[in-house]
Amino acid sequence: MVGGGRDAFIGAVHRQALALDGRWQLVAGALSSDPEKARASGRDLGLPDDRNHGCWQDLLEDEIARPPGERIDLVCIVTPNHLHYPVARAFTEAGFHVVCDKPLANNSEQARHLVALCEREGTVFGVTYNYTGYPMVRQARALVQGGAIGEVRKVVVEYNQGWLARDVERSGNKQAGWRTDPERSGRAGAIGDIGSHAENLVATVTGLEIEAVCADLSTFVPGRRLEDDGNLLLRYSSGACGVLMATQVAAGCENDLSLRVFGSEGSLSWRQEEPNQLLLCPADGPRQLFTRGSPWLHEAARRATRLPAGHPEAFIEAFANVYIGVAEAIQARREGRIPVAWEADHPTVQDGARGVWFIEKTVESSRSAQKWTFWE
Amino acid sequence: MVGGGRDAFIGAVHRQALALDGRWQLVAGALSSDPEKARASGRDLGLPDDRNHGCWQDLLEDEIARPPGERIDLVCIVTPNHLHYPVARAFTEAGFHVVCDKPLANNSEQARHLVALCEREGTVFGVTYNYTGYPMVRQARALVQGGAIGEVRKVVVEYNQGWLARDVERSGNKQAGWRTDPERSGRAGAIGDIGSHAENLVATVTGLEIEAVCADLSTFVPGRRLEDDGNLLLRYSSGACGVLMATQVAAGCENDLSLRVFGSEGSLSWRQEEPNQLLLCPADGPRQLFTRGSPWLHEAARRATRLPAGHPEAFIEAFANVYIGVAEAIQARREGRIPVAWEADHPTVQDGARGVWFIEKTVESSRSAQKWTFWE
Amino acid sequence: MVGGGRDAFIGAVHRQALALDGRWQLVAGALSSDPEKARASGRDLGLPDDRNHGCWQDLLEDEIARPPGERIDLVCIVTPNHLHYPVARAFTEAGFHVVCDKPLANNSEQARHLVALCEREGTVFGVTYNYTGYPMVRQARALVQGGAIGEVRKVVVEYNQGWLARDVERSGNKQAGWRTDPERSGRAGAIGDIGSHAENLVATVTGLEIEAVCADLSTFVPGRRLEDDGNLLLRYSSGACGVLMATQVAAGCENDLSLRVFGSEGSLSWRQEEPNQLLLCPADGPRQLFTRGSPWLHEAARRATRLPAGHPEAFIEAFANVYIGVAEAIQARREGRIPVAWEADHPTVQDGARGVWFIEKTVESSRSAQKWTFWE
Amino acid sequence: MVGGGRDAFIGAVHRQALALDGRWQLVAGALSSDPEKARASGRDLGLPDDRNHGCWQDLLEDEIARPPGERIDLVCIVTPNHLHYPVARAFTEAGFHVVCDKPLANNSEQARHLVALCEREGTVFGVTYNYTGYPMVRQARALVQGGAIGEVRKVVVEYNQGWLARDVERSGNKQAGWRTDPERSGRAGAIGDIGSHAENLVATVTGLEIEAVCADLSTFVPGRRLEDDGNLLLRYSSGACGVLMATQVAAGCENDLSLRVFGSEGSLSWRQEEPNQLLLCPADGPRQLFTRGSPWLHEAARRATRLPAGHPEAFIEAFANVYIGVAEAIQARREGRIPVAWEADHPTVQDGARGVWFIEKTVESSRSAQKWTFWE
Repeated sequence: MVGGGRDAFIGAVHRQALALDGRWQLVAGALSSDPEKARASGRDLGLPDDRNHGCWQDLLEDEIARPPGERIDLVCIVTPNHLHYPVARAFTEAGFHVVCDKPLANNSEQARHLVALCEREGTVFGVTYNYTGYPMVRQARALVQGGAIGEVRKVVVEYNQGWLARDVERSGNKQAGWRTDPERSGRAGAIGDIGSHAENLVATVTGLEIEAVCADLSTFVPGRRLEDDGNLLLRYSSGACGVLMATQVAAGCENDLSLRVFGSEGSLSWRQEEPNQLLLCPADGPRQLFTRGSPWLHEAARRATRLPAGHPEAFIEAFANVYIGVAEAIQARREGRIPVAWEADHPTVQDGARGVWFIEKTVESSRSAQKWTFWE
Repeated sequence: MVGGGRDAFIGAVHRQALALDGRWQLVAGALSSDPEKARASGRDLGLPDDRNHGCWQDLLEDEIARPPGERIDLVCIVTPNHLHYPVARAFTEAGFHVVCDKPLANNSEQARHLVALCEREGTVFGVTYNYTGYPMVRQARALVQGGAIGEVRKVVVEYNQGWLARDVERSGNKQAGWRTDPERSGRAGAIGDIGSHAENLVATVTGLEIEAVCADLSTFVPGRRLEDDGNLLLRYSSGACGVLMATQVAAGCENDLSLRVFGSEGSLSWRQEEPNQLLLCPADGPRQLFTRGSPWLHEAARRATRLPAGHPEAFIEAFANVYIGVAEAIQARREGRIPVAWEADHPTVQDGARGVWFIEKTVESSRSAQKWTFWE
Repeated sequence: MVGGGRDAFIGAVHRQALALDGRWQLVAGALSSDPEKARASGRDLGLPDDRNHGCWQDLLEDEIARPPGERIDLVCIVTPNHLHYPVARAFTEAGFHVVCDKPLANNSEQARHLVALCEREGTVFGVTYNYTGYPMVRQARALVQGGAIGEVRKVVVEYNQGWLARDVERSGNKQAGWRTDPERSGRAGAIGDIGSHAENLVATVTGLEIEAVCADLSTFVPGRRLEDDGNLLLRYSSGACGVLMATQVAAGCENDLSLRVFGSEGSLSWRQEEPNQLLLCPADGPRQLFTRGSPWLHEAARRATRLPAGHPEAFIEAFANVYIGVAEAIQARREGRIPVAWEADHPTVQDGARGVWFIEKTVESSRSAQKWTFWE
Repeated sequence: MVGGGRDAFIGAVHRQALALDGRWQLVAGALSSDPEKARASGRDLGLPDDRNHGCWQDLLEDEIARPPGERIDLVCIVTPNHLHYPVARAFTEAGFHVVCDKPLANNSEQARHLVALCEREGTVFGVTYNYTGYPMVRQARALVQGGAIGEVRKVVVEYNQGWLARDVERSGNKQAGWRTDPERSGRAGAIGDIGSHAENLVATVTGLEIEAVCADLSTFVPGRRLEDDGNLLLRYSSGACGVLMATQVAAGCENDLSLRVFGSEGSLSWRQEEPNQLLLCPADGPRQLFTRGSPWLHEAARRATRLPAGHPEAFIEAFANVYIGVAEAIQARREGRIPVAWEADHPTVQDGARGVWFIEKTVESSRSAQKWTFWE
């Protein structure tokens, strides 16, 4: 693991997700960019001294120096955004499999380079668009792509948070600090941090390809350097239209990611805060409420489930499903075979690269002022 | 009543709303543009022959001819859209109070003319933006305008219907027929029919004024002559941003109008399909669920309520509240006084005129293609 | 109308329900047991002096004296409970059709007498178990009796209110006054007032017949003379079991009536506070959410609906459905025919008599102390 | 771990819960009563051969033989019910800390013996009433016991499952096999399996003590040897009343455990299938919806949470919270101190013993036929 030391948020989630199914073990780390803190964090987690490094370069060097059978199977990159690319590039070039947080890279050129590198090296590269790990998202994908709602006409995806409603970055909130800092977060704020999850959710469930975007980005908290709210109109190549909303300043909201897909024969909706259910509204019959763990779900949803229906699973379990997909992909690669059916289900480096492109085009669109028709 | 004969939908709702509180009685009508059908419809409703007219001109002439004390108090205009203006104009010019369905007129010039006429004549003119008659919408207005969510940052309003998901206008659905016909419906489809309700809901609850609009309108059902889906980005003069979505082709949706207002200190949300509750999410405490009929609601919400909490009220009752507001306005005018506090609460001719403007600017915006940033 | 003057609650609801569909008109009344107040209340409602009576005996005498074609079609009895029987008996004996609030009578002997009288006179007698007027209750009845959940195993019905959580009867609440007074309310409090609605809801939806009851009644508010909370175990003759709960002292509850029916092939649930939907949980497929106004509902539910799906209806509309059923029953009787199919759907005098029996057996059971197994 | 081999359900949940927080490691086991299967299951999980035993007696003997610092810290007993007591007794007598599934023992005499043994040995003994590990259950406890709803008047707890709606025990469902077999499950079916969770939930949240019980147990599936449905009236020593319902034959239900507590000043409700929220309905203000992870929750709820609000946690996390409580209890004991405040929060051997008593008294009550008042 690179990053994820004391004070970090998402590193601990990765470790819980890794531990859950007993398929992974944390054996080495460079858990902070501050060497002292890196090592202290590693000791907290019981890492042996010889694999508890002060910087990611040392970790990489040490792993390369080990005999193949004693190396790590996978590196997890959970640093602030600006470090994703250099670390991912170095480990991929050295032939390691990677799981990396989004956004994948600082710009689309880097992202494309990573895609090419993975192809060259034949390594597995998962991106933690963790929300697509939810079983009911996979059910939604199966329903939409299986034709249950007919032709998709419109997609509404939104991600409403309120934790940046005030300027907490100036009162010591470390997460807020780097996420609102363009040097460490990248060229976008809310769009990069959560809008990119929304984009990936739509792409995963519907398979639609964006053709054009019209974005309105705002910064509501005075002094903030990146946008904290964004609203997008979208056109897809299929003719469908879309609306994407992402905000981090909607006071009172928690982590309200939701997806609605409206089609010619029905509509469906899913909300991350109640992830165990999925509502399908057909044109010609009563609404159908699918619940996680039910035997009549699609295989892709059933195999992403640990517990029977009514025994809810949630965020960590969905996160762990990404790691299961990556594990299966590595396993298949080792066995020299293509994963079958719904095996190895996980967001890939291509998803990550498309996400970087999405951020760039959104920022570009927001800078074009000609979109508005003035009221009088 | 003008319009609302056999086969009409909304005329019957008006009559139920009028009857509910015992404050109005239907005494005269010209219930269809087809004289035969008009009279047959009037007989169904028990209108006496001498006040059951074959056309609205006859109705007007007859009423004018009666001594003042025996005339109607109010004319209700529930025709297809294209007739709103001529009928409203004629009755207002003759000094009658009016309740008229939206959109108020065929264009903003006509709408402004009606506003001026009402001022000149001193008549009451209500527009049946009926959704603002819901008690919990009035509670939302009181909360937002009383500062409960701080400064409004963002508004998301949507109105999702599915009844036009197929080309029902070509299979004899009379409602669909005129509502998708530009000659009778006006220059917009979904935006005029339901988007205008969404616009009014935002304006009523928040008081925000639109500064600019960026609209993407689509027609999904082949052969349809008006848009059946629209998505708008909005900027308000206060600096707030907004998203407005209206669709009539989302198969499986019913009458899903909802409003969410996100502010610096909290957020609130209301859905028309569950109208008896209102959710307030403050930044600094547990979420609050307000229920209609509770003694701690704002007076404006309490006085719009007939039954105790837990005894739900719904669409017809909200509709009737518009008529109560109009009745109170007429009463106050007769008594030569300004309505006090929350008395005479109803959407006015000004709301109606702004709604026509909204439709025009939305259509204008949708015709500007420069909004899009293309994906590659 | 007998009863329902100023200060009354339910009388106004009856009048709104009567007005809604234009099938009834209030033409005569004896609106209070206090002659002054009766007449003042009648004047408020515009009753002509010659049909605005100071006591129900005068109303009856006057109506009998009129020529048959000029008499009332129906008397609505909306007095406190203890007057239901004498008024209902007198009007039925005189050959009038009746709608009467529940409980029908003060004891089961009276109730049986009314049943016999109606048979003898051939009059229609509706009892305002108004909750069975909801379209989705009729849908539930159609589903259960049509086998959608297989054999019914268990019924859970509850009615939770909080308005008597404090001793409001001693602080001038007129409703609380008579409803907690055994002289005017009868031998039961919560069970008579709301438990009887719960009993009727189960009987209407399932058709099950009670075989035995085991009741635990409590009085939580000191000084109150009737129970304000009751919980019952039930056995039905089919072998099904049941639980019925009714409380008026659950602070924070509003009018929370709900029904759940569990069967061998599925379960369903309905809540009065969200009356436009009905959830069916089959054993072998996704849950189904039925919504009022949908074309795929049972005819009995569709004909109890005024508005399209998504345009909610509520309490008053359900109440009005009882009156529609009574109107259809009277109409059929006048035409000398048996109502067909779902015509004339309303709770009858037999339902009312069973409800009185239910109250008596519940009170009897609660007095038997041998039910308890003590903890140590 | 004793029990929990291949085919078992709950053993895997225990292991996921143990792994989640990195505080426990599975080091030894006797994972089945079938020695072959036990060892195969242990190999699946990577247990070393010398700690992978064929029966629990071998495990115990081996652990006792090790030097104190190399022994297990805790034994987890996840066998079918009939083995809980002998295993728990033997390990406790040997001085080991224990976590054991409910019901604790086959009868109350055994249960009392275990309580006495734990006192004598000074060992920690947790019982996996896992539902009380949910943060919002702890919030409910804090609210009720802190007076937020005044004096508790009534408790309604229910646990509705449908997985035994058909005789799956005869078609090879191993779980159904032992759970419906009195030799392995104990003297009660649904009451023992899930009713006991409901009893514990009430006791934990409210602290009320049962004074008397009146139970109606039924067996709906022909041939089944234990009851599959139970309904109880309860009286508590405080004067409160209660209703407890448990069923495993409600087709279409999943794992629908819910608790409602009605008090003199308000009511609250919680549902296991949507565990991240808790609804408080005060008598005198809007309803309050508490969400997991919010900073304004009680410390006992906050410390049982891993993720920020809106990032849902669920069943496994709640289960893991029981293990955290046990770990803290052991830690405190090692440090020779009493756990402070909300440290060491877990269901104890006393809870387990009370649960066995509950089962016994329920079965005893159900055998008394005098509770019923017959309908005619």
